[in-house]
Amino acid sequence: MRLSIYNTLKRKKEIFEPLNPPHVGMYVCGPTVYGDAHLGHARSALTFDLVFRYLKFLGYKVRYVRNITDVGHLENDADEGEDKIAKKARLEQLEPMEIVKYFTDRYHANMDALNIQHPSIEPTASGHIIEQIEMVKTIFDKGYAYEAEGSVYFDVDKYSQDYDYGKLSGRKVEELLENTRELAGQEEKKNSFDFALWKKADERHIMQWKSPWSKGFPGWHMECSAMSKKYLGETFDIHGGGMDLLFPHHESEIAQSNAAQGKDAVRYWMHNNMITVNGQKMGKSLNNFITLNEFFSGKHEALQQAYSPMTIRFFLLQAHYRSTLDFSNEALQAAEKGMNKLFAAYDLIEKLPDTKSSSVDIAKYRDLCLKAMSDDFNSPVLIAHLFDLVKVINQVNDKKETLSKDDIVTLKQIFDDFLITILGIKSEKSTDNTQVVDYLMQTILDIRQNAKTNKDWATADKIRNDLNKLNIQVKDTKDGASWSFR
Amino acid sequence: MRLSIYNTLKRKKEIFEPLNPPHVGMYVCGPTVYGDAHLGHARSALTFDLVFRYLKFLGYKVRYVRNITDVGHLENDADEGEDKIAKKARLEQLEPMEIVKYFTDRYHANMDALNIQHPSIEPTASGHIIEQIEMVKTIFDKGYAYEAEGSVYFDVDKYSQDYDYGKLSGRKVEELLENTRELAGQEEKKNSFDFALWKKADERHIMQWKSPWSKGFPGWHMECSAMSKKYLGETFDIHGGGMDLLFPHHESEIAQSNAAQGKDAVRYWMHNNMITVNGQKMGKSLNNFITLNEFFSGKHEALQQAYSPMTIRFFLLQAHYRSTLDFSNEALQAAEKGMNKLFAAYDLIEKLPDTKSSSVDIAKYRDLCLKAMSDDFNSPVLIAHLFDLVKVINQVNDKKETLSKDDIVTLKQIFDDFLITILGIKSEKSTDNTQVVDYLMQTILDIRQNAKTNKDWATADKIRNDLNKLNIQVKDTKDGASWSFR
Repeated sequence: MRLSIYNTLKRKKEIFEPLNPPHVGMYVCGPTVYGDAHLGHARSALTFDLVFRYLKFLGYKVRYVRNITDVGHLENDADEGEDKIAKKARLEQLEPMEIVKYFTDRYHANMDALNIQHPSIEPTASGHIIEQIEMVKTIFDKGYAYEAEGSVYFDVDKYSQDYDYGKLSGRKVEELLENTRELAGQEEKKNSFDFALWKKADERHIMQWKSPWSKGFPGWHMECSAMSKKYLGETFDIHGGGMDLLFPHHESEIAQSNAAQGKDAVRYWMHNNMITVNGQKMGKSLNNFITLNEFFSGKHEALQQAYSPMTIRFFLLQAHYRSTLDFSNEALQAAEKGMNKLFAAYDLIEKLPDTKSSSVDIAKYRDLCLKAMSDDFNSPVLIAHLFDLVKVINQVNDKKETLSKDDIVTLKQIFDDFLITILGIKSEKSTDNTQVVDYLMQTILDIRQNAKTNKDWATADKIRNDLNKLNIQVKDTKDGASWSFR
Repeated sequence: MRLSIYNTLKRKKEIFEPLNPPHVGMYVCGPTVYGDAHLGHARSALTFDLVFRYLKFLGYKVRYVRNITDVGHLENDADEGEDKIAKKARLEQLEPMEIVKYFTDRYHANMDALNIQHPSIEPTASGHIIEQIEMVKTIFDKGYAYEAEGSVYFDVDKYSQDYDYGKLSGRKVEELLENTRELAGQEEKKNSFDFALWKKADERHIMQWKSPWSKGFPGWHMECSAMSKKYLGETFDIHGGGMDLLFPHHESEIAQSNAAQGKDAVRYWMHNNMITVNGQKMGKSLNNFITLNEFFSGKHEALQQAYSPMTIRFFLLQAHYRSTLDFSNEALQAAEKGMNKLFAAYDLIEKLPDTKSSSVDIAKYRDLCLKAMSDDFNSPVLIAHLFDLVKVINQVNDKKETLSKDDIVTLKQIFDDFLITILGIKSEKSTDNTQVVDYLMQTILDIRQNAKTNKDWATADKIRNDLNKLNIQVKDTKDGASWSFR
């Protein structure tokens, strides 16, 4: 069973064959850290967490690079407007890197809550200015860029004479010309569809570095080309990101790499689809987003309750990454219920009665699960198979079907591999038992009271001694007994 | 009451007067991320966490910069040997930045466990190569550096004709000359006490950048001078670090700043003292260290038990930051006990009976706590005052002393401010009660067994009903009763 991946560039599924097996290089576009992560950010990170986990499960050694954009991302994609982080810093009267640190930490905390594994390397744009300048120089020297007023622009027209510009997004240069409107400050460019490789900073711009052209900062698309090359080499296996990055960001990356090195950098392009709210993309720019912290706390007018990180994770995994996924309270509540059902069955496995022979073909399910994941990481089909196994578990528990000892072990292994390791769902119930302890203590204190009333000193003494060992102190008051840890 | 800080440079306590109140700029040397953090790292981070917290409590707006050293720190301080991270990467067959990411994440997790607040900015050496090269250029242009074989060295002899080299550490150039031995590769230097600003990389060195002198990497001392200047300005308030960094690291920083800008950068130098093991410094190079993860798990031959992060925190705070602190199991166990005592009293405050008037002067204690902290952050004296208040609380609880309602509120506020906000100690008891639940359930199941034996059906029924409500299932087997959550 071989892994197939839908390659956006080819518009079809292809058998995955890494360049240097067992090594796999994967680069994924991370967040621009000027606000809290919302459900859309979670979907992208989770999609490639699933890819990362499954590739490792298949035995590959994956170097997974996910960047942090901390400079160069302007307010609109046409190289105009203010730097998103610098603007936030100006509004909050902070140093841009204070904004970066604050939101990077919050992003990490969110990702940890969602049980998303850390990438192998997490480079920042501002930490790789030298590498970006070097690559701009190369593109410039090869004739695919021009300087205007201290800024450097990519010459799309020139490039498209030698290479296929638009091959990822399907856009044509002629159409782009018709469809782009003139924006303020665009006059430096030869054509409105050219994009910035280096921008001269105006005086008040608080992030700028020296370059051969001006004091300024790199264009947004530059960082990914420069950093993927540095850490994964000129050619690498997988480049991932949200579908909203396909154009212009990824199309520009392809142009930059070809212009600089005469060949493509990426072998498999993968794009996750969007979260929608009433059919419209959830996004920061549309201001219809719900942050992950709001989901976790339930504090947002569109939310009927709090949703735990694992509920969010399971909800996202119930859709294939290339489908859109519409947010609703009903769907989240259904996900919560479904996940609890899976865990209840999972807990039951070790208690199942075993018999000499099995009435169910368990090994078949293992193959089905592998087949689902190997078919372009089809997590909803995988989850459907796991729910079929829930039925089997309940039937065996009710003695309507039978399983041998070996098959019960296999069954447990299927859940361990696919639910825990690959889907990355973990049980949330044992994290905080404060309420359970309160409740059990109440039971014990009630029994103690009864024992005292009944002059059952043996029981009363036993309770006192046991609680003593736990450093629990009981105080008798007029209103009954209270307790506390010593 | 004004804050006084022991300034290592002046060898005395000074009244703290920030340059631009209410703003305070503070720079602290963070870890070189090629191994797990040990108790010594915790002490440094915690010392300046205490400073950070107290300055904010006093109303200052603090920009706290703590760096991550991810390149340039060689195996010995005489500019020889391999880069610590590159060596680890070579041994593990990983990209250096994979090592950096792995140990940075683990460092952050340890700091979070210790309830150490995040710095405002956490810059990396590799992310500030441009800024470092610029500063080397300036020093070079001012005549305090020379080039040799593509490397650039600081000319200590030349510098000491114009400035007071050794003013922080008290070392004299003449003595340094007598005491330093010749090391392999030192022949490039004019004098053995000169230090590298830029090192030419040999071919196999995996981290290198272009510079006017060679492809290479910055000297270790350079990053702190360049990054503190970038984020805090030419002159800033506080520079902190472990006492082991005083020479050559901080002495070199002072020389670099003076050479580059003709004046000192730092106004108050603060140094925390070392952790000792049987009187010897605990350190990675001496190989006598115990990592924080080992303390938390108890898995180290020198440890008699696991110690919680808050026990470690309280243990460290019980000593003044400028005193050495000897590690021992007894001292840690005493800290654990003391901390529990503080929390028991803290929990009791809200339950204290109030009377019309107070027999104890509570306001006085607030002043005493402030005085302790304002006297160079004297946490052990502060803790002694809190223990005096524990006595008061217990006496009021036993009705031997009295407190008015207002004074009880003040008492609570003192604990909230000084124990929780400033010392940063938090209650650990509700984080994971799994063991407590197990233990309480055993007590309940024992009682149930006795009740059954004694045909006390009322008790047995009550237990069954109570556990049912908690979704706890009890199974009777030959070996006794077992239980599980449903």
